[in-house]
Amino acid sequence: MTATAGLARARLRGEVVLVRISQGQATVLATESDHPAADVLREALHTGAWREDRDKAKVPVEDLELLAPVANPSKILCVGLNYLDHADESGVQAPAKPLLFAKFPNTLRADGAVVEVRSDLAGELDYEGELAVVIGSRADNVDLDEALDHVLGYVAANDLSARDAQFSDGQWLRGKSANGFCPVGPVVVLAEDVEDPQALRIVTRLNDQVVQDCSTGEMIFSVAEIISYASRYMTLEPGDLILTGTPPGVGFARKPPLLVRDGDVVTVTVEGVGSVANQVLVK
Amino acid sequence: MTATAGLARARLRGEVVLVRISQGQATVLATESDHPAADVLREALHTGAWREDRDKAKVPVEDLELLAPVANPSKILCVGLNYLDHADESGVQAPAKPLLFAKFPNTLRADGAVVEVRSDLAGELDYEGELAVVIGSRADNVDLDEALDHVLGYVAANDLSARDAQFSDGQWLRGKSANGFCPVGPVVVLAEDVEDPQALRIVTRLNDQVVQDCSTGEMIFSVAEIISYASRYMTLEPGDLILTGTPPGVGFARKPPLLVRDGDVVTVTVEGVGSVANQVLVK
Repeated sequence: MTATAGLARARLRGEVVLVRISQGQATVLATESDHPAADVLREALHTGAWREDRDKAKVPVEDLELLAPVANPSKILCVGLNYLDHADESGVQAPAKPLLFAKFPNTLRADGAVVEVRSDLAGELDYEGELAVVIGSRADNVDLDEALDHVLGYVAANDLSARDAQFSDGQWLRGKSANGFCPVGPVVVLAEDVEDPQALRIVTRLNDQVVQDCSTGEMIFSVAEIISYASRYMTLEPGDLILTGTPPGVGFARKPPLLVRDGDVVTVTVEGVGSVANQVLVK
Repeated sequence: MTATAGLARARLRGEVVLVRISQGQATVLATESDHPAADVLREALHTGAWREDRDKAKVPVEDLELLAPVANPSKILCVGLNYLDHADESGVQAPAKPLLFAKFPNTLRADGAVVEVRSDLAGELDYEGELAVVIGSRADNVDLDEALDHVLGYVAANDLSARDAQFSDGQWLRGKSANGFCPVGPVVVLAEDVEDPQALRIVTRLNDQVVQDCSTGEMIFSVAEIISYASRYMTLEPGDLILTGTPPGVGFARKPPLLVRDGDVVTVTVEGVGSVANQVLVK
C-alpha cells in the first residue's frame, strides 16, 4: 500500500473504517455504517468525525487494506476536454466553458483492484489519468474566490473510457460509467497539504510505458473555476467527486491507436497526491 | 395530496417515513435515517422493512406531506429518444439501442414542490413527461425475461431540460441535471398493481394545455429491454430510478417553440400511476 498522508477508507479487521494516515501510523476516525449508501468518508464529513482524532485508536498502516476513498457520493462529476492539447488531439474545439458529464458510483474501484471489463466494451478501451477533487462542504452557487474552501482534498483517478460506446452513443455515459470505470486513490490528500492544485504533474503509464505526462497547470478551467461553475447548476455535496479532465496522450488519439488490452495495468500518478494502479481483465 | 395506492415517502409529525398507502390509510413502515444519503425507501429495500406491514401503526393519509418517493438513489438513469415520433420531431434518427444519460439526486423534487430555475437556464426550458421505474432488487447483467422481476414499481416523472445548455454543451448533463430538474411522484405504485407498463397513457400539461398525450406502448425499447440492457454495463441498485424517455410533443420541437416560463405549472400524468405537478419559478 501507499503510505501517503491523508484520509483513507480501509478495511481493518473485518470492518471498514476511515483513518487519517500520517508518518506510517493510522488514526481510526470512524467506522462505516451498514447504510445502503455506506461511505465512511461521506458519513464522517456529515458528522464531523473526520476532524476529531484525539483519543482515537492508532494502528500500523500495514494492518490496513486500502479501499476506494469515496464509495457512494451523490455525484461523480467529470469535466471533458479540459486540456487544450487533449481537445486538439481529439479533433474538437476546446470548450468555452467547462463541459460536464457524469459517472455513477458503480464505477469506483480502489488502487490495486482489478477492473473487470465486459468484452463488448473492451474493443477500444482507453485510459485517462486525472486529478480528482473530493468536496468537503456543501457548495451551492459559490464564487470563484470561495470555491477552494469547499475542497476536502485530492485523489488520483483514471477515467476509463470505452471509446466505441462513448462515441457511437454520442452521450458519454455508457462508455464512461460501466462497472469499475473509475479507479480512484490511494488516499485523500488534504487540501492544506497541496500547495497549488494547478501545479501538479500527472503521469499515466500503460504497463511500463509513459503515455501521459503533463501538469495540472495546463488545465483550461482551474479546479476553482470548475467548482464555482458547476455549483451554479448542481449543489455539490460533501463527499462528491470531481474529475478535472485528462491531459493529452490518450490512446484513441494516437497513430496508431494505443488500446488497453486484457491484462494491462494502468497507473495514474499525481504529484504529491499518489498513484492509482489497476489491472484490466476482459471477462 | 394524491391518494394513489403504493409506497410513499412522507413527512409525518416532523419525521420522514415510508408508508404504504391503501384505501385512504397509510401504514408506517420505516423512519428515515440521518445518513447523508438518507432515503427511507432505499433503506427499507435494504432492510426488507418495506414488506413488513403487520403490527405497524396506521395513520390517515391526510396527516402526511408527500415527499419525492426516491431521494438519494445511486443512479438516476435516463433514456433519450425512446419514442419514434419524439426522435422524428427532434430531427434525429431513432437510436439502435437505448441511449443512456444521467441525472444526479440534486434534481429530485416532490409532486407539488416549486422548481426554482436559474435565469441562465430559463431561456429555453422544456418539459418531458415520462414513466419512471424504481428498481427493487440488484440487477447485474440480467436477461430480458427476468428484467421486470427487478422492478419495485412506477412513478411519474418530468425530465426538465434546459435546451440551450443541453444542446450547446453536447453532453446533456448540465441542461438536464440542474437542481430541481427531476420532479417525481406522487407515490411508487407497485409493479404488481400495474398490469402492463407498456400500455399506460402519458399526458403532460403545460398549465391547462395538453402538450403530450401518448402511450408507453409507443416506446422503442420497453422497460424490460432498458433494464436488461443497462444492467449489462452498470449494476442497478435497489432504489435506483430509471426515466424511460419522453413521447412526442416537447416544447422545443414545436413551431413556434413552446417554452416553460416563470410561473408555469407542468403536470405529468401516467395512467394508473398518478400525477406529478410542479410550478417553475425563475430566480
